[in-house]
Amino acid sequence: MSALPAPLRVALLQSSGHLRETGRNLDAIEAAARRAAEAGAGLLICSEMFLTGYAIGDDVHRLAEPADGPSARRVASIAAESGVAIAYGYPERDAGGAVFNSVQLLGPGGEPLANYRKSHLFGAFERKYFTPGDEPVVQADLLGFRVGLMICYDVEFPENVRAHALAGTDLLAVPTAQMHPYEFVAEAVVPTRAFESQLYLAYVNRCGAEGAFDFVGLSCLVGPDGVSRARAGRGEELILADVDSALLRASRKANPYLHDRRPELYRSLSPAEDEYPPS
Amino acid sequence: MSALPAPLRVALLQSSGHLRETGRNLDAIEAAARRAAEAGAGLLICSEMFLTGYAIGDDVHRLAEPADGPSARRVASIAAESGVAIAYGYPERDAGGAVFNSVQLLGPGGEPLANYRKSHLFGAFERKYFTPGDEPVVQADLLGFRVGLMICYDVEFPENVRAHALAGTDLLAVPTAQMHPYEFVAEAVVPTRAFESQLYLAYVNRCGAEGAFDFVGLSCLVGPDGVSRARAGRGEELILADVDSALLRASRKANPYLHDRRPELYRSLSPAEDEYPPS
Repeated sequence: MSALPAPLRVALLQSSGHLRETGRNLDAIEAAARRAAEAGAGLLICSEMFLTGYAIGDDVHRLAEPADGPSARRVASIAAESGVAIAYGYPERDAGGAVFNSVQLLGPGGEPLANYRKSHLFGAFERKYFTPGDEPVVQADLLGFRVGLMICYDVEFPENVRAHALAGTDLLAVPTAQMHPYEFVAEAVVPTRAFESQLYLAYVNRCGAEGAFDFVGLSCLVGPDGVSRARAGRGEELILADVDSALLRASRKANPYLHDRRPELYRSLSPAEDEYPPS
Repeated sequence: MSALPAPLRVALLQSSGHLRETGRNLDAIEAAARRAAEAGAGLLICSEMFLTGYAIGDDVHRLAEPADGPSARRVASIAAESGVAIAYGYPERDAGGAVFNSVQLLGPGGEPLANYRKSHLFGAFERKYFTPGDEPVVQADLLGFRVGLMICYDVEFPENVRAHALAGTDLLAVPTAQMHPYEFVAEAVVPTRAFESQLYLAYVNRCGAEGAFDFVGLSCLVGPDGVSRARAGRGEELILADVDSALLRASRKANPYLHDRRPELYRSLSPAEDEYPPS
């Protein structure tokens, strides 16, 4: 039995930042990283599209940046200065000009660890502006934990979280832009995901109104037992809680869902090409 | 657009009946069917292993019966007399002597509609006494609704409910023997299952103590919006609520999870034989 890593304190920045003002949002990340470091956190997670705001319409293309663009370099220097790893949502432009709804994880030295492109786009707004990503499981190792990345609507599909659990994710970081009237997702679906797949899940939302959207906050860090270790209200807030490998190990033993699965009975969920589409 | 069927009122019998006393449990089904009929219900659902009790240890084999055995014939006559379809859990012995943890659905004329054998056995107790079933989706059409069958631990795996949704299940009947300290399943997992797969789910539990087991009650009929239309407490209770096809239709339109799935990204959940086991 290998030695367990020390608990990882995670800071969840529930905030909408400033619409279309990337510079001010980078300042907000810097302030949050400083507070997170003072509180002993090893990882700071910001909401979906935090760098630019979510409801930016046609400005998505203008404000999108490469994964190694100037804003990424600024976040990398914030991470290195604070010693806190940072995951943040942003619109990503690739070399071919396609734009993705992405989240990037930078390590505590500012090094790029992982970049995930949202695979399940939500509604007409997102489908108009973004290309969906095609890589379901993106992970990185951080301070002894396998950290996975996902965005908002992705987590509402149990298949996506299960794929992470099967690939060994310990902590799933889920920046989101969760709006009224879907409070049920934050309150019931997210805790269920953590429990059914036996991992920690950090659900980090925006809050307040942006155009037609009314973001509900309710960010949370949920343990593999389904218990929310920290839960935000409806407004701006930085919440903290620990990811504990001893609890992960004990909970996985007490709730052996991954062991008790019967994959051969789940063929209809992902038929092979010659079986597709399902009847 | 086809005409919608009338709402289907469902009665959930939260009860542990009488341990090892099949005759008295048949009497309890008869009494419940009469009350259900008086309340306008078209379907009565009883808990897991209701016919014999759950904690019957070595008596499982002695008390098991074929799906068309004497107890099934008695339930059929109760259904026909009351005009109420009945789903009930029981230990089933097949022609080869194998025993399954099963649920049978009989129609309002007493006709056998479907019989399901629990595919995900829970814990050492069940694995000692039962053979797992290998058919993941068992359904029947009842009064305009596609009714699916599942038992207890099965529903804790999102894959099983998803397979039903993909096969068109409108109402999933889930007899259970849910015990302390797993209240989280009744309170959060079950509503999440109904919401994420957009179907009605009737979770019908035992209650009170049986040997080492402390059943928690909390039976519920949850709609596709995640709202519990009826919810029992911890004791013996018959609860009623309606399954409404108009709500099903509207909810599926508002929450297009089945449409927005990307099955090609879920390969790791059910690898083909040449990809198995997953890395």
